[in-house]
Amino acid sequence: MLLGLHRGASATLHEQLEARLRELVRGGQLPAGMRLPSSRALATALGVSRGIVLEAYAQLVAEGYLTATQGAPTRVAATAAVERPPLPAGSLNDDRRARLAPDVPDLAAFPREAWMRSVRAALREAPVRALADADPRGVPELRNALMEYLVRARAAAPEPEHVLISSGFTQGFAVLSEVLAARGLEAIAVESPGWPRHRLIAERSGLQPVAIDVDAHGLRVDQLADSGCEAVVVTPAHQYPTGVVLGAERRAELLEWAEDGDGLIIEDDYDSELRYDRAGVGALQGLAPERVCHIGSVSKRMAPGLRLGWTLSPSWLTGPLTYEQAVSGSGAAVPAQLALADYIARGDLDRHLRRMRVRYAAARERLLAALAAALPGARVGGVAAGLFVPVALPAARAGAGARAGAGGLLGIGEPVGAGGIDLLLGFAGYSEAAIADAVAMLAARVHRCTD
Amino acid sequence: MLLGLHRGASATLHEQLEARLRELVRGGQLPAGMRLPSSRALATALGVSRGIVLEAYAQLVAEGYLTATQGAPTRVAATAAVERPPLPAGSLNDDRRARLAPDVPDLAAFPREAWMRSVRAALREAPVRALADADPRGVPELRNALMEYLVRARAAAPEPEHVLISSGFTQGFAVLSEVLAARGLEAIAVESPGWPRHRLIAERSGLQPVAIDVDAHGLRVDQLADSGCEAVVVTPAHQYPTGVVLGAERRAELLEWAEDGDGLIIEDDYDSELRYDRAGVGALQGLAPERVCHIGSVSKRMAPGLRLGWTLSPSWLTGPLTYEQAVSGSGAAVPAQLALADYIARGDLDRHLRRMRVRYAAARERLLAALAAALPGARVGGVAAGLFVPVALPAARAGAGARAGAGGLLGIGEPVGAGGIDLLLGFAGYSEAAIADAVAMLAARVHRCTD
Repeated sequence: MLLGLHRGASATLHEQLEARLRELVRGGQLPAGMRLPSSRALATALGVSRGIVLEAYAQLVAEGYLTATQGAPTRVAATAAVERPPLPAGSLNDDRRARLAPDVPDLAAFPREAWMRSVRAALREAPVRALADADPRGVPELRNALMEYLVRARAAAPEPEHVLISSGFTQGFAVLSEVLAARGLEAIAVESPGWPRHRLIAERSGLQPVAIDVDAHGLRVDQLADSGCEAVVVTPAHQYPTGVVLGAERRAELLEWAEDGDGLIIEDDYDSELRYDRAGVGALQGLAPERVCHIGSVSKRMAPGLRLGWTLSPSWLTGPLTYEQAVSGSGAAVPAQLALADYIARGDLDRHLRRMRVRYAAARERLLAALAAALPGARVGGVAAGLFVPVALPAARAGAGARAGAGGLLGIGEPVGAGGIDLLLGFAGYSEAAIADAVAMLAARVHRCTD
Repeated sequence: MLLGLHRGASATLHEQLEARLRELVRGGQLPAGMRLPSSRALATALGVSRGIVLEAYAQLVAEGYLTATQGAPTRVAATAAVERPPLPAGSLNDDRRARLAPDVPDLAAFPREAWMRSVRAALREAPVRALADADPRGVPELRNALMEYLVRARAAAPEPEHVLISSGFTQGFAVLSEVLAARGLEAIAVESPGWPRHRLIAERSGLQPVAIDVDAHGLRVDQLADSGCEAVVVTPAHQYPTGVVLGAERRAELLEWAEDGDGLIIEDDYDSELRYDRAGVGALQGLAPERVCHIGSVSKRMAPGLRLGWTLSPSWLTGPLTYEQAVSGSGAAVPAQLALADYIARGDLDRHLRRMRVRYAAARERLLAALAAALPGARVGGVAAGLFVPVALPAARAGAGARAGAGGLLGIGEPVGAGGIDLLLGFAGYSEAAIADAVAMLAARVHRCTD
């Protein structure tokens, strides 16, 4: 047997022996049923102490690769070889290169080092109690940190008792939809055009989505009032997908609607710190904490894969949200919660967002320039913010180019086909060349469709 | 201003200045509206370069602690001071000391160092695509690692396409309950006595729990057949709370029930590797992968706070489970998934469980000895496994002691009051002295109740 142990390698002899034996059994080089040398014989052959071999054998017996019964020789276990082919790891990277995805931040710029520092601090300092995951609302450390962060970054008015940690917007809104449905709500107003997932999540809880138009000033609050709905989900700081900001008058009207009619505003605050022309508008929640359920996450701010978000609940909803969160078993892992608390407290979230704003603003400008050059008739909407640019293609609204864009036939960006927008184009994480390539491809396809 | 910067400290001068200024604003020592010295003046006063001060000011402006407009001096922002009192961190540690909680592993023995090694490797090596969280079923790396682990550790028969990563048993079962209810299931059989949360989760999805008795051989499959239920949730390897193992005949009957009547067995595999007298019985899933939905997690194996679990789905349920997982926004964070994949591949999960089995077996023996000495009439049930010992108090079933135990009046362990069990007592993570104290307290309270 070529076990190839190296003294002085970074792994100990025991680790090396264990890993090598495991590999040989897994790979089938040591077939099922094969008798292994006695620990004494192997130790002598390898020139190591017998204890090292005994420990490796014991571990591999515990793992099920080997079998050993008192007095009998150690053998390779029958069930040890796994014959099912493993799943291939995906290659989303390559797919994204020319797609200009409008909903994913620059993941290559993810602050691995700073995040690692916070993860390490969190795991080192986590009190033992935290590992028990006792409070479905999340750990106090993060709820305190978010309270402080959202006051200054979003002009929100959170009470720590009513901050709930979620595993992202979808989870936070799903829990809320369940609670509202259980309280007898039947319909919920959604923006039109809007984020399709708002509808899907609401429908999952049996809520009927009611479409309310969005114009250049955001949600048509007059239509909302006429709809008879008692709850609405909005994206006031940066409407998805039109990119407009809810105007000052509309904000006042919306808050009045909630006050007068006992309505609930669900504020989807997905990317508000990513504003490139000025500071983002403050959260609605700060103006009416008992009328607004505010939901945010790190998905656009850092990375969706972290699965961390927050809900600022009106006090009257905190109890039911907490129960639903507990009994649905959703919510974020404790070490990740503690890491985010540390990351915020060090100022690292602000620092990351500052850095991203500079990068994203420049990438957005490059996209606009490429569009202006290759598709001079395309119109771009919305404010300078977030991760997407809404685009109306040069062929008139009813034209073939627009239909192709709306149908996703162009294969670039995200099709919309509503509100005068054909496509959302992303720019985050794409190089100047990748943007130019994708826009050239888009222009060629549009011209093909309209010729 | 006493900014106290130290050259040669582990933090850079810039980090120190930023942290110190943030602290002074937060603490109110620099009041709102106060004008700060110019960057030039402060740099001179501190003997540092002006760039360091400019960078710290810029970061704190971005964080909202300071305001700066072109040409005007930098000032402390008006909204910067947070006046709400933060939440206190809990002290579950102390509470647990004498409680003998039966459902929490020894969290002080959590393998922080080995876990940290895997977290570090995962974060360093995570492909960029992974941070996008594209597949609601989880990352391929962990689904492959679990496939391999569950074959050898649980004699399961997982197909990687049908492994879903969850954030724990509750989340996995909640998603399954939603899917079953949406497919028209109305009732679900649960064990009696059983884990109360099985009922709560099922009821949340509108499923009616139907109680099926448990005896010394586990679930009464004859009763299940008579119930007309089409699905049942069971704990075959270690029934909660009676501690019995589903007997060989019952296993065969249960699988036959599923085959003959197109029934679904939901296997709650919460602690099966924690068996102290022999190897745990294999998973039912390995015998009938299309009839069994197998759900496990790291909650008892490592720590509930990690919020990581797995579901081995019958192939016909994978699609709906995947959709429900996506639209409920539940599921585990990607870095944690990758860390668990690494942790399993290194053999560290097996190693940790080996270590815990030795510790838990000894702690369990200490509890049994303390009980025998202080409450000689108490009867202990179940096999040598898991984190709890089922106890029937010495006063006969209908006695005052039993009622007090069942009502939780004794304040030790977890009250049951069914199936001839008054209490579950835990032992994991308690010192010999803590166990002796708690048992003495229990004995005194039982005697008080029965005198």
